[in-house]
Amino acid sequence: MNDKRIRQQFDFCLEMDKEKLIGRQTYLADGNRKENDAEHAWHMAVMTLVLSEYANEKIDVLRTISMLLIHDVVEIDAGDTYAYDEEGKKTQRQRELAAADRIFGMLPADQAKQFRALWDEFEACETPEAKFARTMDNIQPAMLNDAAGGKAWKEKGVRLSQILQRNENTAKGSEALWAYSRENFLEPNLQNGQIKNT
Amino acid sequence: MNDKRIRQQFDFCLEMDKEKLIGRQTYLADGNRKENDAEHAWHMAVMTLVLSEYANEKIDVLRTISMLLIHDVVEIDAGDTYAYDEEGKKTQRQRELAAADRIFGMLPADQAKQFRALWDEFEACETPEAKFARTMDNIQPAMLNDAAGGKAWKEKGVRLSQILQRNENTAKGSEALWAYSRENFLEPNLQNGQIKNT
Repeated sequence: MNDKRIRQQFDFCLEMDKEKLIGRQTYLADGNRKENDAEHAWHMAVMTLVLSEYANEKIDVLRTISMLLIHDVVEIDAGDTYAYDEEGKKTQRQRELAAADRIFGMLPADQAKQFRALWDEFEACETPEAKFARTMDNIQPAMLNDAAGGKAWKEKGVRLSQILQRNENTAKGSEALWAYSRENFLEPNLQNGQIKNT
Repeated sequence: MNDKRIRQQFDFCLEMDKEKLIGRQTYLADGNRKENDAEHAWHMAVMTLVLSEYANEKIDVLRTISMLLIHDVVEIDAGDTYAYDEEGKKTQRQRELAAADRIFGMLPADQAKQFRALWDEFEACETPEAKFARTMDNIQPAMLNDAAGGKAWKEKGVRLSQILQRNENTAKGSEALWAYSRENFLEPNLQNGQIKNT
């Protein structure tokens, strides 16, 4: 066995544990606590197993899931930048690039390159897989926010225009899932005022 | 769009959220809190992306990850049965079978069958993919227990003989990973007494 290689791999696997400590702004469905990055990534991966048939273009499910499993690990260093935190978003890219260098750089060179390519692919949002992954990344929190009674939207005073801007790419991965999300997760919360209609 | 189908799928996706509430007996590496099933599943899926090269037989990575992502969802109904809870293990199989019927039965029939087949495959532990998934299921907590200073083993008074019995299938998925785990995660905790040497 190549001792250095397997040690680098296990060091990376252990480092991953820290993703469980990165909090997000989305409440679990019961509204009692917010989820973390690891839970979010797992949830989207399972949802991809269930919902991949709705992708606009045929997708490679393994590559899509791989992207979803690892795309937030940069937040171990860079922290979670809330979707509607305009100040934080100004430095987000720079912070996340440095994190990607360090964290994926823990792996043996071949895997560092492979994981970084997956992360870059997600960020660029151009392939069918990356587009579908982005769709998941937007629809999973919308589903939970609705299930929790729109609490997260209300607390942050989120406006429909912000949601639509954030979701400008959601339909590019799946028209069907974006339509479902609008009708079932967003519309009821516009009607009852949890999302501001401006 | 087939309205009933997509509704069943989203109902299942939302039900999955409950897996984040199922606690396990493994501490995170920092020793401050224990992980939950969703975090555990995510961690093993990422580890499979990194470590699949060590499988004894060539594995289909997507099928292996799919199994790992969903194999604990039965615990939404059945609860987590601790690896060394001999009383709980007596009723575990029956509780989990009923849970599998209900939870996978929420999906459209074709997917219910597909997910159930994945769960049955993991449980039977006969294919290369199921054996490797079982290896992950044993090695991920060993890695975390060691990182947390052997705290979980010490608290429960776990004996080496129990660990060896639990790990009787670990080498069947990967001789190399079992050797690494013994040498790096178990041996030091035997030496310092966190695991009882009986």
